[in-house]
Amino acid sequence: MMGGQEEQPGVVEEATVEKVLKRSSSVVSEKEVTLKDLARSMANFAAEREWDQFHSPRNLLLALVGEVGELSEIFQWKGEVPRGLSDWNDADKEHLGEELADVLLYLVRLADVCNVDLGDSALQKLQKNARKYPL
Amino acid sequence: MMGGQEEQPGVVEEATVEKVLKRSSSVVSEKEVTLKDLARSMANFAAEREWDQFHSPRNLLLALVGEVGELSEIFQWKGEVPRGLSDWNDADKEHLGEELADVLLYLVRLADVCNVDLGDSALQKLQKNARKYPL
Amino acid sequence: MMGGQEEQPGVVEEATVEKVLKRSSSVVSEKEVTLKDLARSMANFAAEREWDQFHSPRNLLLALVGEVGELSEIFQWKGEVPRGLSDWNDADKEHLGEELADVLLYLVRLADVCNVDLGDSALQKLQKNARKYPL
Amino acid sequence: MMGGQEEQPGVVEEATVEKVLKRSSSVVSEKEVTLKDLARSMANFAAEREWDQFHSPRNLLLALVGEVGELSEIFQWKGEVPRGLSDWNDADKEHLGEELADVLLYLVRLADVCNVDLGDSALQKLQKNARKYPL
Repeated sequence: MMGGQEEQPGVVEEATVEKVLKRSSSVVSEKEVTLKDLARSMANFAAEREWDQFHSPRNLLLALVGEVGELSEIFQWKGEVPRGLSDWNDADKEHLGEELADVLLYLVRLADVCNVDLGDSALQKLQKNARKYPL
Repeated sequence: MMGGQEEQPGVVEEATVEKVLKRSSSVVSEKEVTLKDLARSMANFAAEREWDQFHSPRNLLLALVGEVGELSEIFQWKGEVPRGLSDWNDADKEHLGEELADVLLYLVRLADVCNVDLGDSALQKLQKNARKYPL
Repeated sequence: MMGGQEEQPGVVEEATVEKVLKRSSSVVSEKEVTLKDLARSMANFAAEREWDQFHSPRNLLLALVGEVGELSEIFQWKGEVPRGLSDWNDADKEHLGEELADVLLYLVRLADVCNVDLGDSALQKLQKNARKYPL
Repeated sequence: MMGGQEEQPGVVEEATVEKVLKRSSSVVSEKEVTLKDLARSMANFAAEREWDQFHSPRNLLLALVGEVGELSEIFQWKGEVPRGLSDWNDADKEHLGEELADVLLYLVRLADVCNVDLGDSALQKLQKNARKYPL
């Protein structure tokens, strides 16, 4: 995942990712993971590894498509599955969580490099949908 | 978008979506749109329209794939595009925001009906990535 | 579909596409549509419209993803559907045929601009699968 | 690839796949791989392995999406690539051929279980495109 094979051993930068993750962790306990937190984490992660060069819009879009493919593979031979996935074992559920996360992280990153505020866009879309399908 | 043709005119329910949106709107000003807010909004939206019957995991997954397709169509004939999309006009940027939002909303909803905490999964994936690609 | 807004009115070229289509039509009656026929048709179609400039590998790949999205939309709210689609009406079946065709045509074109012999690759993959899953 | 973990050791059936492949191989030399050949090969392959139970339309569609994801992964970090892929090495080109083939084979199989004549549909779409974008 993420964007390149290159690593930069020995680079002594501040551990921005760790800090963000720590902050995010406290956020988790309050169940308040925000899209901005994720965008910031991804941006720092890429910058620290000099991966920005790989994170062009179309590269990230294709990476997103790749992750959607992996998500689909989880469901491909199963026929219809019930909501809640009550009969899935823990390993399968964890795998699913990882693939859903991968799609989300690339989506967040794609929006970010396109200067799109994804949270704003989502709220606007919800409002548009509410107007389109009134109660 | 969202899940069905059926509407329920005349149903006088509490306007849950509106409330969530209002709450979310205040959240926006603080730049804190959370994944839980979006999941709640989508769940209420579906429940109020009796769309839960359509929101099975694989239905939502295919809807997600459909939205990824629409997102791809925006980029398909453009060749490489620069980060920031500085040369895109406002209509194209707004269109992009809508398609990114559609992908996000179906992803959030898919995770929700699968009992996956998407924010948690994303944070865990970030931590896993940090271990996989150490500085 | 296909690749550009530009048309070239008044260009009196030989009607290559028509010829290929005619040839292909006769082929149809013998039920022998080949991948090479389709690749040739697509190449001529693009050349005659000066669309080669748009048909880069990644442009075509994203166009393919777009068509897979449209294909998915046909199935997205239906739940499981039976093989043969015996309960679908003619309009839905025709729509399905068009979307399947769009995916195929972009796939054929993508392979062609990548210098991949798609028919050869398919036969080799069948043989590899036969070795991987022996009777 | 293909559809299930189950094998059936010791089943002495006629080697239909091999026959089709042999027939297809002779066809290759004449550069005439047809969509019907591929559909027949896939149908026989599935029947001989008792995989028809897995080959429902939506299972195959999700498998197709999975393969499109793998195809996208090949291109995801590369930026724009030139037509012809002249600077790709043989291993990468072979990998590309395999992923293109996987997409094709699932597409052919999906069309087949939906009772869609994919070759016919492709020719009709070419004709429709020719009318839509006249010379």
